Parts: sequence; structure tokens; C-alpha cells
Amino acid sequence: MSKVTCEISMSLDGFIAGPNVRVGNGMGDDGDRLHDWRFDAKTETDDAIVDETYASTGAVLIGKRMFDVGFEPWGDPPPFGMPVFIVTHEAREPMRMQGGTTYTFVTDGIEAALELARAAAGDKDVGIWGGANIIQEYLKAGLLDEMQIHVVPVLFGDGTRLFEGLGGRRIELRKTSTIDTPGATHVRYDVVR
Amino acid sequence: MSKVTCEISMSLDGFIAGPNVRVGNGMGDDGDRLHDWRFDAKTETDDAIVDETYASTGAVLIGKRMFDVGFEPWGDPPPFGMPVFIVTHEAREPMRMQGGTTYTFVTDGIEAALELARAAAGDKDVGIWGGANIIQEYLKAGLLDEMQIHVVPVLFGDGTRLFEGLGGRRIELRKTSTIDTPGATHVRYDVVR
Repeated sequence: MSKVTCEISMSLDGFIAGPNVRVGNGMGDDGDRLHDWRFDAKTETDDAIVDETYASTGAVLIGKRMFDVGFEPWGDPPPFGMPVFIVTHEAREPMRMQGGTTYTFVTDGIEAALELARAAAGDKDVGIWGGANIIQEYLKAGLLDEMQIHVVPVLFGDGTRLFEGLGGRRIELRKTSTIDTPGATHVRYDVVR
Repeated sequence: MSKVTCEISMSLDGFIAGPNVRVGNGMGDDGDRLHDWRFDAKTETDDAIVDETYASTGAVLIGKRMFDVGFEPWGDPPPFGMPVFIVTHEAREPMRMQGGTTYTFVTDGIEAALELARAAAGDKDVGIWGGANIIQEYLKAGLLDEMQIHVVPVLFGDGTRLFEGLGGRRIELRKTSTIDTPGATHVRYDVVR
């Protein structure tokens, strides 16, 4: 059964980017620290977690801000290799990149974007890969089945918080898996609805 | 070697209490959810973690607000069984409770309180058991050696955040242990200084 699952790296104090996110500084000041577990500090286990995420995901949904700051560093071929849907207010022609990535801009809301992503994903999962706002929106709309959070052993003190706009809503989670590596604690949660 | 270590339960979105903390509502609205792993939902492993914390701790430091909201529910004997130092602005006579708990009120700051707690703890650790403000103060002052965080699978959306007042300071942590139970992910971090 295809799931809707978010996937993101977060500091222990809840930040998914440093301060001053902008084009040319996509992860914010020193925000790349959150991805050390995927690159400089990676272990075989970390690699396997990333591989498994790619293998199980059939389409990706991202926010417009993440697309704007990510587009240039991702380059061509981008690191998706599958259809990517961007939730935006700005109509734009789809883009076919190398290596199987397509960028499709959806202007009629998160539910419509999810419908398109589900159709593109087939039997695989739809991955909501950031940023914070779009994950919050799907969570608040009750459309998120699962969260995969990579908790990184650092306190950022400032930046973009993953969970900021829930407005006092209590959401129960069910922990389904915890994998510990030096660079992160990789935890999967089902969202209880 | 005696360490200074904080110990606290936190929701995945970073809250250590629900909203509206006050006398008679010490954990905030529905805040007791954060302690299910210690009580209703506990496993043998959760019990062992609590036992180990008590065994390794020789004195406890808490904030005045935590004392005020905790005093009545803790009762007598209180659940410490060791010397407890309360950082406060208000001079007050020490209180000797049943079962080995003493409450000592320290008015000359966090360093003086730590000196007293270290002396009382002997070879054991000094435990900073909350609330959020006092943990932040010791962290910012560079006096915290270790954090033990029990990450509870729930999103609170509102309440008291553990990490709120770090003022953009980046603090590196070194994960030293992760123990997973259904009710919490128990993670120990050394503070890198």
C-alpha cells in the first residue's frame, strides 16, 4: 500500500535549516551540518537508509521555497531520479531534467498535488521531502501517514523549525523503527489519526 | 568522575510541558503524556533507565518554578530521596522531608548552586532535572556535561519548549547511547565544549 511519508533531517532542538535561508544559502548558515550523516560522516547504515528511502519512493512533493533554493545546487541530473511535484502559487511549464527527474508545478493546492504524486508513484510511496511549511500543511490536513526524522546530535539555536505552525494541535505518533548511527538517530513514526 | 547531567522528557516537537503550567497543573494541559513511558506505558527497560538515573545521581538541581508546581504533587516523601537544590531569588529555610530528600534554596546563582550540589553528590552525578529555563542556563554557561533526553512519540504543538533561549548559539553534541522503547527514545548526549 502506497504511503505518504515525510523525510527530513532535524537538529535535536527542532531545526531543519540554519538562519538566513535564501538562494545561494539553501540550508541556511552552516545548515549543511544537518546532512553530515549523509555525506562526510556517513556509515554503511546511513547509506542503506538513504538507499531504502529512494527505493521505496515513487514521487516526491516539495515546497516552492525548497525548489527555489535547491534548483541550482541540485544541478542536472538532480538527486531525485523520479517525478517531483512542487506546490506553488505560480503557474510554470514542467521541466524534464536528466536521469528521470521531472519538475511539475502544481497551483491548485496540496490535495491536488498529492493526487498527481500518488498517480505518478504507483505502488510506491509519496515522499514529502520539505521544507517545513509543506510538511506542516500535509500534517495539519491529516494527509501524512508516516514521518522519517533523522535527529542530528547538534543544537542549532536558530533557523527554520520543522514543527512551528501546528497551532496547539496534539498529534499522537507510533514509533515503528529506530536506527542509531553516530551521525543521527533515524526514527520512523506512523501518524495516529 | 562526577558529571553534571540533565534529564528530561520531551515531545518530538521539543516541548517538555503542555500549555498553562501553573500550581495544580504542573505539567501543563495534558502534559503528563510525556511521562507515560515512566508509568502507564512502561516496560522493564524504561524502569531500568529510571533506576540507573537514580543510582548514578547524588544530588538534584531544579528551578524555582518547577519546585512551586511540583511541591504538592510530589508529597512527602518526595520522589528524590537525595538532596535537592532549588535556584531561586527568594531566601527560604531549608526543608528536611521524609526518605532522604532535603530542599535547599540557593539565592546566589547557578554556579553557587552547582557548587553545593557537587559537594552533596560526592562521587555521583549532579542531575539537573528541569524545568527548561534552568537547563538552558546551565547549557549556556557551559556547565552541562551531558543530556539525557527521553523523546516521546507525540507532537504537542504548544507548551514549554526545552530549547528556546539559546540565542542562535550552535552547540555540538556527541551521542553516547540510544535505548529504544515503545514509549520513548532515550538518548544520551555529551555536550562538546
